[in-house]
Amino acid sequence: MAPLIEPRVLKGFRDFLPAAEIERRELTEQIETSFRSFGFVPIDTPALEYTEILLGKGGGETEKQVYRFRDHGDRDVALRFDLTVPFARFMAEHRSELPLPFKRYHIAKVWRGENTQRGRYREFTQCDFDIVGSESAGADFEILLMMRETLRSIGVGDVTIRMNHRGVFNRFLRRLGIEDKSVEILRTVDKLSKIGMESTFLQLSELIGPEKAQNVLNYIQPHNTYKETLAAITEAAGGPGPDTERLETLHRFMEDAGIADIFVLDPSITRGLDYYTGVVYETFLNDLPDIGSVCSGGRYDNLAALYSKEQLPGVGASIGLDRLIAALEALGRTKKALGYAQVAIACTDESLGGHYQRLASQLRCAGVSCEVFTEAKKITQQYALAEKKGARWVIICPEDAFTHEPLRLTLRELTSRRDTEGLAVEELIRIVKG
Amino acid sequence: MAPLIEPRVLKGFRDFLPAAEIERRELTEQIETSFRSFGFVPIDTPALEYTEILLGKGGGETEKQVYRFRDHGDRDVALRFDLTVPFARFMAEHRSELPLPFKRYHIAKVWRGENTQRGRYREFTQCDFDIVGSESAGADFEILLMMRETLRSIGVGDVTIRMNHRGVFNRFLRRLGIEDKSVEILRTVDKLSKIGMESTFLQLSELIGPEKAQNVLNYIQPHNTYKETLAAITEAAGGPGPDTERLETLHRFMEDAGIADIFVLDPSITRGLDYYTGVVYETFLNDLPDIGSVCSGGRYDNLAALYSKEQLPGVGASIGLDRLIAALEALGRTKKALGYAQVAIACTDESLGGHYQRLASQLRCAGVSCEVFTEAKKITQQYALAEKKGARWVIICPEDAFTHEPLRLTLRELTSRRDTEGLAVEELIRIVKG
Repeated sequence: MAPLIEPRVLKGFRDFLPAAEIERRELTEQIETSFRSFGFVPIDTPALEYTEILLGKGGGETEKQVYRFRDHGDRDVALRFDLTVPFARFMAEHRSELPLPFKRYHIAKVWRGENTQRGRYREFTQCDFDIVGSESAGADFEILLMMRETLRSIGVGDVTIRMNHRGVFNRFLRRLGIEDKSVEILRTVDKLSKIGMESTFLQLSELIGPEKAQNVLNYIQPHNTYKETLAAITEAAGGPGPDTERLETLHRFMEDAGIADIFVLDPSITRGLDYYTGVVYETFLNDLPDIGSVCSGGRYDNLAALYSKEQLPGVGASIGLDRLIAALEALGRTKKALGYAQVAIACTDESLGGHYQRLASQLRCAGVSCEVFTEAKKITQQYALAEKKGARWVIICPEDAFTHEPLRLTLRELTSRRDTEGLAVEELIRIVKG
Repeated sequence: MAPLIEPRVLKGFRDFLPAAEIERRELTEQIETSFRSFGFVPIDTPALEYTEILLGKGGGETEKQVYRFRDHGDRDVALRFDLTVPFARFMAEHRSELPLPFKRYHIAKVWRGENTQRGRYREFTQCDFDIVGSESAGADFEILLMMRETLRSIGVGDVTIRMNHRGVFNRFLRRLGIEDKSVEILRTVDKLSKIGMESTFLQLSELIGPEKAQNVLNYIQPHNTYKETLAAITEAAGGPGPDTERLETLHRFMEDAGIADIFVLDPSITRGLDYYTGVVYETFLNDLPDIGSVCSGGRYDNLAALYSKEQLPGVGASIGLDRLIAALEALGRTKKALGYAQVAIACTDESLGGHYQRLASQLRCAGVSCEVFTEAKKITQQYALAEKKGARWVIICPEDAFTHEPLRLTLRELTSRRDTEGLAVEELIRIVKG
């Protein structure tokens, strides 16, 4: 006999046992329900793509993390590391088949060979939603509203959405004469909440000198209200422009929709990635702000520039499912369901398997999920098994149940250990459905 | 400017546009609902595993098809090519954490570098369901019943489940003295429906000579009824045994459950793969038999033998989602939904974005999915867009709608082109919900 192979998964990868997987499925189902209520439609793309498609822009850190190899046809291929790049390729390829503005969501796994010491996983799920083919403020606002409604629907409590506009910041940098350093400055400012004010100042000073570093730090301080902050950054940027007008319009939309209180204009929000060109936003849980942004996004003016000459402006956001689950766990709001069966049918005689399943079918038809036990173990063991599987009830069929009409059954409620005898199937269904 | 990268997917891989992806999601949701009604729970495992885990048994053709490479840590890794091998590893690893018998389902993508000329895809979805930790006939029967109920629930019409038992066939081969060739004989017989009787005879003759080939062909002919076939193969195998008793018990279960008519005992069903040891089955659509089996499976006596010394008997089956969708398409039973929004709110003034979304929120709260248009194009263009997105209704807000209380709206039904004016929100919701 060959020696045994040690059963194990790769570092940074995970099995999901039933309780964890049920939680994940319920969460994604709630997220999908919310997306669909806004009229967004799902797409899917391959896990594996040409490397040239995925790494078109190059990009140092990403490139190092990508799972890349040569396939059977010696093609240079890679596993997707996010859902944005495949979506850009998808839009360039299928644009003519899709009604614009196109509103899509995509919930799927992505892979990055990240350093697992930072608590990161190498396989994780993203939930992206985007509106492509619209430059309107209404599209920006819809994504903001979806972020709020979707997070609300999954029970993480109240959220605060911190937003900003890349354009205003760029105008401000231009005025200071440091526009050429904008990417580095954006990246540094983006780390503010992680590294603190002092380190940010030192890093900025190295880039642009201490005086301008102080200017930048002053700029990124939020004021008391959205309107005050907007006035301050408008002035710092040299007066109104389409960018500040967009921020103003969005604020009016929030007021008209009656949800202005959850939005904060925060000039320190920049989103490190450089493909955003308009509004950017991050979402924080009021009950758990330290966990960081659970949903982030922004506006880009040309999604598919690498693959197509046609301009495709859009706006979107992404929910990180793993961080969200970590948040729900920290808040004690996971559901910890063990299974789906409400009822288990005990097996007291293995030769009655057909009858048990016929009874179970009646329950299932009535909308009661029902597991049939197939082994005639001691009844107390069967109660224990039913409890482990999360069922609330066990049906016991008396010895002669299936030879005498009508069928009379015993129903046990597991928590109270109370038995009710002599029930007809219809009565039993009524009790179980409450 | 850099030259454009051609947007394309790898051969054998596919994008799913909204209509196709909606179809796939609805189908998997129906399948999941059915699995859950039987008390089965979901698990998930990594897409990427150690190659030694996935290819433990070696196995010529599989090995050639696997996407295999060295990762950043120089580990020999591969993408999963089915859901059975990862499940075996999962059970060996987590057995002590799971209540046995354990009933799980797993719906996920798998990857094989297959020859695409045969119309095969290199990325496809499997829906597996198994009961592990039970040798009972009740477990065999539950899987058979689930196959039937699940396929029934997705509207592919009536099915015929053709079943057999590996043990009876093996006893028959032993009697003929050709047991040592059983794997090759099983593989040959398994191709019967594809290559026809004559070719099967020739291939068998090469293996075991014409006389015994004829014996095998006689054996695999089904008789008029389940009972007659059972009697014939029992005799050919040298009399009753646990295997023929199991087939008898299952037939009684079918009769007790009132579903015996859909099952055929077919001695030619062998399932080419050699890990099955008990009952095996394949499912055919009565309206479309030529498409082949849409759901197949069987009993195995030791799932995790490669990774664990503990015996884990089980029984399970797998639905091939892609073949099922091909079947639904051939039957003209796909739903061809274009989107989820029942209603679109027309945009006649872009500055009203906040009000439109507030109105939409009222509809969504009432369970009406609702897309908000964000660009003030011509109203006829907006009707056309709503139709392309599959909406049935468009709401038009009169010019002064949001300045006068109460709100009065116009509702257009797109197919009839009929407008109803002056509706309050509650009236409108009532009409839309039918």
